Amino acid sequence: MAFNTLTCPHCGTVVKQYRNPFPTVDIIIELNDGIILIERKNPPLGWALPGGFVDYGESLENAAVREAKEETSLDISELRLVGCYSDPLRDHRMHTISTVFAAKGNGSPQAADDALNLKIFQWHELPEQLCFDHKKIVNDYLEKKAEKSALISRGLLKA
Amino acid sequence: MAFNTLTCPHCGTVVKQYRNPFPTVDIIIELNDGIILIERKNPPLGWALPGGFVDYGESLENAAVREAKEETSLDISELRLVGCYSDPLRDHRMHTISTVFAAKGNGSPQAADDALNLKIFQWHELPEQLCFDHKKIVNDYLEKKAEKSALISRGLLKA
Repeated sequence: MAFNTLTCPHCGTVVKQYRNPFPTVDIIIELNDGIILIERKNPPLGWALPGGFVDYGESLENAAVREAKEETSLDISELRLVGCYSDPLRDHRMHTISTVFAAKGNGSPQAADDALNLKIFQWHELPEQLCFDHKKIVNDYLEKKAEKSALISRGLLKA
Repeated sequence: MAFNTLTCPHCGTVVKQYRNPFPTVDIIIELNDGIILIERKNPPLGWALPGGFVDYGESLENAAVREAKEETSLDISELRLVGCYSDPLRDHRMHTISTVFAAKGNGSPQAADDALNLKIFQWHELPEQLCFDHKKIVNDYLEKKAEKSALISRGLLKA
């Protein structure tokens, strides 16, 4: 069990509270046969999937829609669960648990909020390195996508 | 944004902290052609899937293994992600986000910890009502299982 320690602003006493991992979402937004990556404004710097913390009282799906809009100005639809990533070391700042969705992007992408810049990357031109475990996430997604495409091309699954 | 309010044990001042939803896991443990349900010791009372809170520094998979062992005395293997359930009203006590796994149970089930009792239920004899959204979770799982079985029986997927 881990605890948060907060300091009382009045008397300086340390107040302890049971500590939980932090739920986050990340989104693989597909647009124009590529995906959107953002260049992070805050450390760790580099290219990453759009995403962020889930608010209390907000579903994972709503958090994904909100974060996509805030960072890329896109509306997303057709959300599909890709997986959950919870290795305590995936983010060196704190223990986050990310639920990852793939979705279709609608609109004109424009970087905002925590995103300094953004770009649509075609699958073959993805950066060598991405922040956190986002390279693994994208690779896992590509693997699933290839399996699905194989089933569709054999007529075993609807597109 | 929501905040936790804690009271300083020394001077009674209210200390505020940013509040996040609470990550939990639930596990559909398959054993002897049925699944394990536990009878909860604490409110809400009734039958439910084994599960609980994810500790800080613990992966979802490790939390599922630990909770299964604590509540049913079973070791679990072959974990598969079923889905994520994050409706803020799914648990009336607080906003929990549950990641649900299906797994194979190994050993002799015995209720312990938060479980007052447990039983192996065959699929056709599941209770009418389960706590939280666990009935929906089990139904979603059965639907996926049926789809998978159909693909296997057509020789399109390996068992």
